[in-house]
Amino acid sequence: MKRRIYLKMKSLEEARNLLLEACPSDIIGEEPVPARHAAGRITSRPVYARLSSPGFHSAAMDGMAVRAAETFDARDQDPVCLKVPGQALPINTGQPLPPDRDAVIMIEHVTFLSEHEIEIRSPVYPWQNVRKVGEDIVATELLFPTNHQLEPYDIGALLTGGVTELYVRERPRVWIIPTGCELINPEEISGASLPPGKSPESNSAVLAAMTEQAGALPHVTPIVDDDPEALKAAVTEALDAGAHVVVINAGSSAGSRDFSAQVIEDLGALLAHGVTIMPGKPTILGMVRQRPVIGNPGYPVSSFISFEQIVMPLLYRLQRRLPLKRHVIDAQVARKIPSRSGMEEFRRGIVGSIGGKYVVTPVKKGAGSISTLTRANCIIHIPAHSEGLEEGEMIQAELLRPEEEVLNTLICTGSHDLILDLIKDMLMRMSPHFNMASTHVGSMGGIMAVKKGLAHMAGTHLFDPETGLYNTPYIHRYMKDMPVRLITLAYRQQGLIIQKGNPRGIGAIEDLAGKDITFVNRQSGSGTRVLLDYCLAKAGIRAEQVRGYRSEEYTHMAVAVAVLSGKADAGLGILAAARALDLDFIPVVEERYDLLMSEESWSHPAIQAMMEIISTKGFKEKVRGMGGYSTRDTGKGVHL
Amino acid sequence: MKRRIYLKMKSLEEARNLLLEACPSDIIGEEPVPARHAAGRITSRPVYARLSSPGFHSAAMDGMAVRAAETFDARDQDPVCLKVPGQALPINTGQPLPPDRDAVIMIEHVTFLSEHEIEIRSPVYPWQNVRKVGEDIVATELLFPTNHQLEPYDIGALLTGGVTELYVRERPRVWIIPTGCELINPEEISGASLPPGKSPESNSAVLAAMTEQAGALPHVTPIVDDDPEALKAAVTEALDAGAHVVVINAGSSAGSRDFSAQVIEDLGALLAHGVTIMPGKPTILGMVRQRPVIGNPGYPVSSFISFEQIVMPLLYRLQRRLPLKRHVIDAQVARKIPSRSGMEEFRRGIVGSIGGKYVVTPVKKGAGSISTLTRANCIIHIPAHSEGLEEGEMIQAELLRPEEEVLNTLICTGSHDLILDLIKDMLMRMSPHFNMASTHVGSMGGIMAVKKGLAHMAGTHLFDPETGLYNTPYIHRYMKDMPVRLITLAYRQQGLIIQKGNPRGIGAIEDLAGKDITFVNRQSGSGTRVLLDYCLAKAGIRAEQVRGYRSEEYTHMAVAVAVLSGKADAGLGILAAARALDLDFIPVVEERYDLLMSEESWSHPAIQAMMEIISTKGFKEKVRGMGGYSTRDTGKGVHL
Repeated sequence: MKRRIYLKMKSLEEARNLLLEACPSDIIGEEPVPARHAAGRITSRPVYARLSSPGFHSAAMDGMAVRAAETFDARDQDPVCLKVPGQALPINTGQPLPPDRDAVIMIEHVTFLSEHEIEIRSPVYPWQNVRKVGEDIVATELLFPTNHQLEPYDIGALLTGGVTELYVRERPRVWIIPTGCELINPEEISGASLPPGKSPESNSAVLAAMTEQAGALPHVTPIVDDDPEALKAAVTEALDAGAHVVVINAGSSAGSRDFSAQVIEDLGALLAHGVTIMPGKPTILGMVRQRPVIGNPGYPVSSFISFEQIVMPLLYRLQRRLPLKRHVIDAQVARKIPSRSGMEEFRRGIVGSIGGKYVVTPVKKGAGSISTLTRANCIIHIPAHSEGLEEGEMIQAELLRPEEEVLNTLICTGSHDLILDLIKDMLMRMSPHFNMASTHVGSMGGIMAVKKGLAHMAGTHLFDPETGLYNTPYIHRYMKDMPVRLITLAYRQQGLIIQKGNPRGIGAIEDLAGKDITFVNRQSGSGTRVLLDYCLAKAGIRAEQVRGYRSEEYTHMAVAVAVLSGKADAGLGILAAARALDLDFIPVVEERYDLLMSEESWSHPAIQAMMEIISTKGFKEKVRGMGGYSTRDTGKGVHL
Repeated sequence: MKRRIYLKMKSLEEARNLLLEACPSDIIGEEPVPARHAAGRITSRPVYARLSSPGFHSAAMDGMAVRAAETFDARDQDPVCLKVPGQALPINTGQPLPPDRDAVIMIEHVTFLSEHEIEIRSPVYPWQNVRKVGEDIVATELLFPTNHQLEPYDIGALLTGGVTELYVRERPRVWIIPTGCELINPEEISGASLPPGKSPESNSAVLAAMTEQAGALPHVTPIVDDDPEALKAAVTEALDAGAHVVVINAGSSAGSRDFSAQVIEDLGALLAHGVTIMPGKPTILGMVRQRPVIGNPGYPVSSFISFEQIVMPLLYRLQRRLPLKRHVIDAQVARKIPSRSGMEEFRRGIVGSIGGKYVVTPVKKGAGSISTLTRANCIIHIPAHSEGLEEGEMIQAELLRPEEEVLNTLICTGSHDLILDLIKDMLMRMSPHFNMASTHVGSMGGIMAVKKGLAHMAGTHLFDPETGLYNTPYIHRYMKDMPVRLITLAYRQQGLIIQKGNPRGIGAIEDLAGKDITFVNRQSGSGTRVLLDYCLAKAGIRAEQVRGYRSEEYTHMAVAVAVLSGKADAGLGILAAARALDLDFIPVVEERYDLLMSEESWSHPAIQAMMEIISTKGFKEKVRGMGGYSTRDTGKGVHL
């Protein structure tokens, strides 16, 4: 077993340059395309007009074609009469000017005396209201230079200039080779569970879609086993078939079954193994038969970032195309984000417009978690020389969504409830301008986030044993002087989520102590944790008596998954989570789940839209249908 | 013949709203697509995960799978030995954790004592270095809400979550019906000239490309004659075939052969005829069988602006997709742009970074001229309530090209020479970051533009009869105190451009007077005009003796076209222009054509790139190949 050592580690800039220098500049050829289908393509030669436009002198207005000299005497008090059609011929915009005419009188300036005679009261000068030959385009003139990316309206100039076919750069052919014995084609998974030890192979589809975004043509091969010979054969086949770029995903690390580096070295030359980016470090750059062969890492976020930072710039350069850049906004960092000096980091974040400024919160780091990308709406780029970002620091966040949507994104944090997903769906049904981004930090974390202006809204269900009240005592304690609103979302059943059929014979909270039962807990600061501690105290049980008390999860669903997977026998959570995974449930208590928001956020369009949604009958019916909820006070303000 | 009267004129906002209100919200249905080809599509239902990810507990690191409890005693001074594989089983990242293990020790923390025994010096806690079931995605959770536009990485989440097919919105089917008896399919034009009175039909291809840009599916029908019955049949056929939106181009005005309004009214309802936008006023909105039918104007820029401002927002809304917006920059208006109050105007402009700020100059207005779009790099939007923009006013320009390119665009004005097109082509070959935008205002106009900071560079060939020098006397006179550079581009032949075979028997400048010869002049302020006036004076000819002296064109090519089309018998211009249109040429004088630039622009990357280009042998050879040029001083600085 080899250690995880990279022999040829490069910085991102070094890696990009190595690749460009090694890559012959002419590997992408040219091809003729019909002009009408050339939008988005890049010219590979200068394009000259073949026809002039207009191709003839034509009327620029509806009116009468005349000889200007015959109108010179026309005055308001002294009109001139012209014979139709001998002197004045009816003409419509765009029609050719007869050879013996040199001007057009606008129809608005004509008085018909009879069918055969008109009167005019002002003259026209020669060539007035006439579009002259070549006024727009002159045959032989340069329409577009080399390396021009054609816009839709450019197609109009091509066709008008008589160019119906032209040479453009080929679209680079990118072969993507998924490799790994543990991978299975997602389309081949039957039923509701994976074959043991198998993972769905999804990276190749992401890389293929990114390849198309860069204007190139992806070709995804079948999954290749972790076998150097099979991999070599796949790379060779790709190059034989005319691939301009080959991407192997994955096997790019330095583990015992990572063969990409070896395969590239055997077939050609290894330029770099390891790039100082995070995620994406285990990236390999090589050249085989004068074509770039890239070892792209296997973790989904690493695969994405590495491809975006290394392969996409290459694809753009090969086409002589300017890279598409993400829109960038100035945003304030919600909390300290440490980063390793020497590594260029690409953190995913959630940014929202809170209190008149953009605030960005990083989501968790895991490169293995595709949801860190799908839940995010921006990328936070931390340069290699930085040791991280300070709380409150202003940065430039790269938006993953349109700014208009980000402006109207409801930033929700605090405790999680499945109803929030329902709100998100209904919000986006209402208008594509709205969106909602959630992070789950527990009820106390949510109160603090609203207090610090890091979120518009927080879900909270904190029980106060002293007063028997939910949420209000905590708000009074921690949010003194800050004007806030508290809106009830629903009452919900909290209880023990247990395995189907209750094999351990659990009956109540009391059973968590003593018996051979493993519990899974929620993180401290969460409302459910507060509730558990209250219930344990009431039952006279100490934390040490509960096996698994220190094993913490951050959401109801994570607790349910822990039970489903056998990691735990029981956890405290909501009925909806148990039901979603077909687990059993022992009710313990009905609690109130409220939404806390600052008075300042109250007027945010997305909050107002949400308030409209939660007051509808349809919404309440759907909530009750999820099980374990009462909507008797949904949408009502709580007196503070 | 009807007058040009619009009975139902609407503002742009009214027009958009009328259309949206009239249009049933559900005309776009949904369709299932394979997840791996769903990037860019819009979900039509919420999407829930079918599988958890990871689907099993797996190693998050390469290392050894262990029971955490057996490692608790390990200390640096007091290592623990574990049997391989009984207690410590080799495992790679991503491999399933055996059911009897609950943690992974990183390979870096393992010392092999033998093949069957390892030593560790620190403990691992339960579930350390383990990716737990559902850590990323939990089966049943909401992956994406309704109306979510799928990004490439979202495809990863779908496939990982076991979703291989999903429902998305249909792509709207847009039928585009070109109409007009004067139109000819560009692909049917054979040879180098148009059939008499015919124009190439190019708008439908532009609208089709724009339709695709909006995520919809275009269908272009054959050209339909200006015949109400034929048009009705075409619209009916489109709707029968399932068109969601029908666009008739053109016949949308109120001329005698404009039938679109009548056709729409006969088949359904006319919502608006005329929209207060410029270009684009003759736009018709109607509904037929609950589908929008749009009369789109015929002038190419009107067609583009009307479609972009009215049809594209509709297409986005029908799909619940956020419109793509152009990048907007703050720019200073180079000169006064008058605008009619009550009309929302979309002027095309050229913007460049000059002296550290963006300066935008409008290009000419003609809606009939597609080159006003293709030569522009931005749109200047003037709201309806405005009477125009003042010189120096700051506005927001909508970029038609990437900002990176605009930043590196060389703004060139002054006198025109065909060599400038060659420079543009070579500049863009050098790097896709560069571009060049030219307007032609004559040599004097160019000097003034450089002086006012409206252009980086101006071509100038102003002869000073008193000193016999080119350019320098004018620069001393008009650019006192301003540090500038003057670089010689080439010497060139100016002469009389005359018809092929010289049918009028022209021999020299003297022949312009008296004889029955029509001349075409260049605009005053142009170097060629100065030269003409000098030559006439030397020959003792007064302006009044030259027929056509007051008929002005702005470029050498326009002069050549005037001669080619028979509008004039002769004009003064360069040999290259005569040669391009296969006309005859009588040399008059060799003149020097220089490039003037401010000292401030000298360091602009595009100027530096240009200087590099014009010093190459290849460039000079190409210039000489164009005919009538000497490159003996090309690239040399002129002493000022």
